[in-house]
Amino acid sequence: MYQFSKIVNSLRTSEIRDLMGLATRADIISFAGGMPNDDLFPIKEINEIYNNLAGQVKKTAFQYGPTPGYPPLLESVKEYMRNKGLPVDDNKILITTGSLQAINILAKVFIDPGDVAIMENPSFIGGISAFKSYLADIRSVPMDQDGIIIEKLEELLNDKKINPKLVYVTPFFHNPAGIMYSTERRQQLINTLKGRNIPLIEDDAYGELYFDENDKTQLTPIKAVAPSDLTVCYTSSFSKILGPGMRLGWMLVPPQIYEKCELCKQSMDACSPNFTQVLANEFLVQGKIYPYIAELRKIYKERKDIMINVLNEYMPKHEDIKWVEPRGGFYIWISLPEYVDATDVLKKTIEGGAVFVVGKTFDPDAKKNNFIRLSFSNMPIEDIEKGVKIIANSLKPFIK
Amino acid sequence: MYQFSKIVNSLRTSEIRDLMGLATRADIISFAGGMPNDDLFPIKEINEIYNNLAGQVKKTAFQYGPTPGYPPLLESVKEYMRNKGLPVDDNKILITTGSLQAINILAKVFIDPGDVAIMENPSFIGGISAFKSYLADIRSVPMDQDGIIIEKLEELLNDKKINPKLVYVTPFFHNPAGIMYSTERRQQLINTLKGRNIPLIEDDAYGELYFDENDKTQLTPIKAVAPSDLTVCYTSSFSKILGPGMRLGWMLVPPQIYEKCELCKQSMDACSPNFTQVLANEFLVQGKIYPYIAELRKIYKERKDIMINVLNEYMPKHEDIKWVEPRGGFYIWISLPEYVDATDVLKKTIEGGAVFVVGKTFDPDAKKNNFIRLSFSNMPIEDIEKGVKIIANSLKPFIK
Repeated sequence: MYQFSKIVNSLRTSEIRDLMGLATRADIISFAGGMPNDDLFPIKEINEIYNNLAGQVKKTAFQYGPTPGYPPLLESVKEYMRNKGLPVDDNKILITTGSLQAINILAKVFIDPGDVAIMENPSFIGGISAFKSYLADIRSVPMDQDGIIIEKLEELLNDKKINPKLVYVTPFFHNPAGIMYSTERRQQLINTLKGRNIPLIEDDAYGELYFDENDKTQLTPIKAVAPSDLTVCYTSSFSKILGPGMRLGWMLVPPQIYEKCELCKQSMDACSPNFTQVLANEFLVQGKIYPYIAELRKIYKERKDIMINVLNEYMPKHEDIKWVEPRGGFYIWISLPEYVDATDVLKKTIEGGAVFVVGKTFDPDAKKNNFIRLSFSNMPIEDIEKGVKIIANSLKPFIK
Repeated sequence: MYQFSKIVNSLRTSEIRDLMGLATRADIISFAGGMPNDDLFPIKEINEIYNNLAGQVKKTAFQYGPTPGYPPLLESVKEYMRNKGLPVDDNKILITTGSLQAINILAKVFIDPGDVAIMENPSFIGGISAFKSYLADIRSVPMDQDGIIIEKLEELLNDKKINPKLVYVTPFFHNPAGIMYSTERRQQLINTLKGRNIPLIEDDAYGELYFDENDKTQLTPIKAVAPSDLTVCYTSSFSKILGPGMRLGWMLVPPQIYEKCELCKQSMDACSPNFTQVLANEFLVQGKIYPYIAELRKIYKERKDIMINVLNEYMPKHEDIKWVEPRGGFYIWISLPEYVDATDVLKKTIEGGAVFVVGKTFDPDAKKNNFIRLSFSNMPIEDIEKGVKIIANSLKPFIK
């Protein structure tokens, strides 16, 4: 009947939601959720900020704000982005209700029903559902440990029958793949896309959560170095560096694209919450964000180290069971022998008292399922070993 | 190029935004903004709530929440809706990022490009832009002081060439028309729509802000009394009864529609801000909302009384200059002789030091302009008389 009705079933992720239900059960060790750690939110800092807001600012917090964002936050995010080397003066920032809204808006602006959107495989589930919700024809490109496989991308780009309207990538601490793009791969991606008149959406929600200071030089966003003949729409978020409950993200895009996106947002929710924008702005302006993120890096690295140790210890030794050690972010992506269906492993894992997300969830074609995503961000740290043991034991019977 | 690009210009409301810029200038008396009064937000109550949140609840505030909404808020909104007589047990509630998002989601679920959406004329600008953003073919139906004109609506409904996918109305304290539907007109609307298989969107953002307790019996939502052969999607909001900066609204809809809407929301912003949902829930659960709204009713009534008095005193006496005294809400909708262009009056008014919104802003066809909307919610109360004098004086030279 309605176009949206036609595709609505493909948006159904009840499997994930059932898992999320499990993920909050106290007796289940959850490696499923892609959320920050409950115990790490900067509650003390935000309490202090909230209780010291000037009267007029607090009134502003309760009121409607301009569609583009709370003006002081636009300024402080601009400086924050400038510090990352991003071209904030030639582009415009739009504050969004989480970076998922930024991706959704870009999908709405770029995609007509049936248009091709190119994504990595695996890819962020929110991106997949945003593109699907506009009836995109998603074509996915496999990745290796350095990023999207350029030859496969070029095959698609050179196919005269398709006319891609966008390419979407997550270069840093990929969800779910857990990897970061190598500098070389990022450059190859730029070389491949430039001059083709296909915008690149660069999703950078996790880039600040690196584990090794030495990697910092390799974390320059594509947006910061893209030539003038490549349009990059950069998206980022406060969700992993302050709290997703704030629902604040942003896009940094060229002015002509910004203009459409702003009108689109105006018709979607008029503005993002001033209440949390006011708090996020103080968090930036008062410089509280930098020591806070430094602390997060240490703690998530510690968790990652434990994960890698126990995975090495307990996972079945097999040439087709492998993972890349993450250099940031929340995720370890484990590939299994092709004959293993992760859903079978999951069922057994749940019986044992743990949970994770199966690979096909992140496959735009919802097929490839010999992968599991383990998020190490949010269980009690003492449960990691126990949980990985459960997963390893559940996996063993399926390995030939 | 892209469908959205084709219509993006029709979403441009730069005229309004320029006015909004003026609306915040200290030397301009603004009757333009449709926002609650800056000085009335329940800041003391929310401070108390915030500072007494249990540790675990505060963590929840910073975290992602389920797409349908923060579960305790779903329960407390359900009870709040039940108290209004709404059928909360046969329908489902979806918390949205303002009620504009609820309308936008319903538009996405019901409208394909070119589909007809029926709206009142005048109508809420957010509704107009939400429907336009999905490329709806908007047909508008004029109103009188009791609501939408049924005969005109029937003409459209009986036109075999069009196949309307929804009807959108605001029965209580209409923005911009300032009126409330009579009980009889609501019943006629029900009779006209039932059995036609066209969903009705009932936007009820202002219904609690009545000025006269005696009107309460006439404020029963259509959703509460609709027969089983009329599908009503009811939307409401915390924006006018707590603070729009929270960005919290909701829809109450039948389960089959809910299911699509939830998936749609999941792809839009994943969830609304837990941070403000936690606060809004306490505001309801602790019963703070009822005395607060009672206070709002008194204060907005006082403002309305002043407005009506000074309009009677200063506006040019002319049979074609008229308004309906509002019985709730924020707005007075003044009709001018047909030969007057409200934009001319506005220019003169701005020179004089006041501002309002011109009629065509609220006409889905962006044409009819012999109306002005005066919002009396948010200027200093002592400026009302001065501001109305400026408007009246600016209008006089245009009256024959």
